[in-house]
Amino acid sequence: MEFTLGQLAALLGGKVEGDENQKVNRLDKIQEGLPGGISFLSNSKYEPHLYETKATAVIVSEDFNASKPFSTTLIRVKDAYSGFTTLLEAYDQFSKMALVGVEEPSTMHESSSMGENGFRGAFSYIGKNCKIGAQVKIHAHAYLGDRVKIGDNTIIHSGVKICADSVIGSNCEIHPGAVIGSDGFGFAPQADGTYRAIPQIGNVILEDHVSIGANTTVDRATMGSTIIKRGAKIDNQVQIAHNVIIGENTVIAAQAGISGSTEIGKNCVIAGKAGIVGHIKIADNTTIGANTGVSKSIKEPGQTLFGYMGFELKNFLKSYSIFKNLDALEKRIKELEKKD
Amino acid sequence: MEFTLGQLAALLGGKVEGDENQKVNRLDKIQEGLPGGISFLSNSKYEPHLYETKATAVIVSEDFNASKPFSTTLIRVKDAYSGFTTLLEAYDQFSKMALVGVEEPSTMHESSSMGENGFRGAFSYIGKNCKIGAQVKIHAHAYLGDRVKIGDNTIIHSGVKICADSVIGSNCEIHPGAVIGSDGFGFAPQADGTYRAIPQIGNVILEDHVSIGANTTVDRATMGSTIIKRGAKIDNQVQIAHNVIIGENTVIAAQAGISGSTEIGKNCVIAGKAGIVGHIKIADNTTIGANTGVSKSIKEPGQTLFGYMGFELKNFLKSYSIFKNLDALEKRIKELEKKD
Amino acid sequence: MEFTLGQLAALLGGKVEGDENQKVNRLDKIQEGLPGGISFLSNSKYEPHLYETKATAVIVSEDFNASKPFSTTLIRVKDAYSGFTTLLEAYDQFSKMALVGVEEPSTMHESSSMGENGFRGAFSYIGKNCKIGAQVKIHAHAYLGDRVKIGDNTIIHSGVKICADSVIGSNCEIHPGAVIGSDGFGFAPQADGTYRAIPQIGNVILEDHVSIGANTTVDRATMGSTIIKRGAKIDNQVQIAHNVIIGENTVIAAQAGISGSTEIGKNCVIAGKAGIVGHIKIADNTTIGANTGVSKSIKEPGQTLFGYMGFELKNFLKSYSIFKNLDALEKRIKELEKKD
Repeated sequence: MEFTLGQLAALLGGKVEGDENQKVNRLDKIQEGLPGGISFLSNSKYEPHLYETKATAVIVSEDFNASKPFSTTLIRVKDAYSGFTTLLEAYDQFSKMALVGVEEPSTMHESSSMGENGFRGAFSYIGKNCKIGAQVKIHAHAYLGDRVKIGDNTIIHSGVKICADSVIGSNCEIHPGAVIGSDGFGFAPQADGTYRAIPQIGNVILEDHVSIGANTTVDRATMGSTIIKRGAKIDNQVQIAHNVIIGENTVIAAQAGISGSTEIGKNCVIAGKAGIVGHIKIADNTTIGANTGVSKSIKEPGQTLFGYMGFELKNFLKSYSIFKNLDALEKRIKELEKKD
Repeated sequence: MEFTLGQLAALLGGKVEGDENQKVNRLDKIQEGLPGGISFLSNSKYEPHLYETKATAVIVSEDFNASKPFSTTLIRVKDAYSGFTTLLEAYDQFSKMALVGVEEPSTMHESSSMGENGFRGAFSYIGKNCKIGAQVKIHAHAYLGDRVKIGDNTIIHSGVKICADSVIGSNCEIHPGAVIGSDGFGFAPQADGTYRAIPQIGNVILEDHVSIGANTTVDRATMGSTIIKRGAKIDNQVQIAHNVIIGENTVIAAQAGISGSTEIGKNCVIAGKAGIVGHIKIADNTTIGANTGVSKSIKEPGQTLFGYMGFELKNFLKSYSIFKNLDALEKRIKELEKKD
Repeated sequence: MEFTLGQLAALLGGKVEGDENQKVNRLDKIQEGLPGGISFLSNSKYEPHLYETKATAVIVSEDFNASKPFSTTLIRVKDAYSGFTTLLEAYDQFSKMALVGVEEPSTMHESSSMGENGFRGAFSYIGKNCKIGAQVKIHAHAYLGDRVKIGDNTIIHSGVKICADSVIGSNCEIHPGAVIGSDGFGFAPQADGTYRAIPQIGNVILEDHVSIGANTTVDRATMGSTIIKRGAKIDNQVQIAHNVIIGENTVIAAQAGISGSTEIGKNCVIAGKAGIVGHIKIADNTTIGANTGVSKSIKEPGQTLFGYMGFELKNFLKSYSIFKNLDALEKRIKELEKKD
């Protein structure tokens, strides 16, 4: 995609100081700017780069005063940083939504339907009785089992597997290799030491504006639904077990794991590698530190937990600082014992 | 799939109280029952829902006495709960095994063979000299490298990768995105600081009735075989390294990892995120807690380990409860030192 | 692949004692040797197996003297162990590089190119403007987004997803199910508690001789590049976040996770399940133990860290050994308090 500086200035409500017909097709860091790229200058620390950059254009704030000559073209906007961010988001949205049509070979069962301006990549598979909204992008190698529903504007990246009966909201994004709706891990121990699989006949529901990371797994419910609520953001390689409920706008970082039937409140932040046992409830606005284990329900909202079996962060840090010198502590006891 | 109440009563050895020709195609929770669904009532706590449910039918026990009028049709069986479980398992088995035939495009090398009543989904790939049993279901996007063997009734879900020379038993189920038989992580350090790959020419063997979770990885042996024995159940995102042996009926929960050449006994339970170092042996019937690290062989069967470097659960809990108040402990020492 | 003993002796600079025209097609352990296989005898502990093995041939060292009769054919080389290793590597390299050609159906956009002696498996997908070197093997179900570059001799296994703009060096190997170049996890919190995605427009660069394990994920940079430098070896299910830099010849074991913008030095060893927070630097030659958390930059090279919040291994082991008996420590304090 190529744009003239004039087009970009119009998008940003700014002014070009120079030739409006110059074209750019790339966003560059100012210190690495090259012809065809557009950069921005917001932090004055980076000003020296302006005088040397080879970027075709640089976005600056209205009140910027150059102290030396330069060869790039300026676009003046109210605020350079937010101008650049607007550009970035427009560019990103544009690239992601530009794909339209069907690449062959790909398969969609005749009983399934897709809204307008959608995309189906080569080797994508859509089972029976699926209902897919408008502007949905289904990339190469994605798999949708039977009766999957997907809302408008959702992006399903390459190699994502969405198993039968899953319901995906609108404006979601599911990154490569994620698995949605695999069987929950339920086995009933038998008298002879073997296990018998407990049928997992529920489904997974992702509400609107949910993001799921690469190679993350979300298991279907035994009965009923595993639910990830509106606006929740899940990173890569997270495991979400059967019948879990994740609250609105909760963020879960990479490699965390939530065990079966646990319910996480809204606006929680769960850091990387944290582990939460099954069948508990975590209150709204809870923060759970990296690699923290949580084995009991958290009833009071707004706490920060940390540690192998998570407790309040402040207490954890005190204990851990002593733990690092337990040796010294023991010596002090020995000393006391001697004198005793 | 649609069944008449008469057919279901026959399957369950029960009796329909009402029209045997009514049809159902879905299992519902009694409190969420809708026309076309069948529910069960076992726990008397849920009895009030019977009088309001819109499910077409409800399974109840022989001796159930209704205290109010209701509009659903009853199926009376010896025990409502186990009747429903039977139905659930039949339904699940039926849905999983009903797929038969070949979806195109898909590829199977001419030197490979598949037993009767099998299924190959679109975009599935079967390499050279594979031998696949009867009733095997190979879903869309599954990959079988050369010389893979698979026993009867095994289900390979969408996007599973089974690398060359793997041997999979009968009645196994491998969930989406799992990788079986990838190269073990073996690199020999060289004098100049670089590493040289050690060829991994062994394979993976899964015995019968093994279940492998979504996005789990099982590496092939350097030489010989990585073996997962009969009846073992492995959850999602578990890592099983080269030359590991997992004993019969051992259960491993999500995100656990077993390092190279370690041998786990039978009937063990390994909880989520547990990590076990390489080249050790874990005795039969060992329980390893969530996020527990195990760095030494466990020789005595039947222990329960817990903690960062796992030791007996009871001891761990004692230590950890003191750790949570190490601060208080230190103060007591200070107090003693002052008085001293 | 089948070779005569004469061909193998020539490769190893050794001599066949018997019929040079016998053929082998497999490497066997000496204790499991069968006709058609070749084994080696290096450790004298295994000598008894020589007299019973059914392997067609056994590689022995020049100075080996048999003490009993045997039926296999010997190949004498300077050093049996390194001879066998040479054979193993040749065999491995040969099997991996032997695939040439294009399996159908597969797609490569007309604007993309591939060097000579390459392989593209069935259902592989290559986007627009990709440049792929010579002898590159792209297995079934692999996905390359637009503008991906790959150097010579690199192997992309089944189901690997390489997202747009990634740059992969030569002699790399990426194992099944790995995802390279998925979006980084960047969301800006909004005043109403929701999150807004921060566009991730950077890319991923893997330099030469890099290995990436099965189902590992490497996120693209927000801007700029996530870089894995020459010779680094990454195991299965590792998570590498946006803008991370991994130094040359650094080794990272399974299920470890590196958070955003962290820079790991060269020749480091990071054990399984270790977690490293974002925005820090780890000095060269650092060793980080299994399941260790690192929350601060490590400035001095050559240290070994261990523990929940990693510190020097020796100190950790001291503290942990006391922790395991904290109970005893507390009793000693009680004792002192009583006497006090």
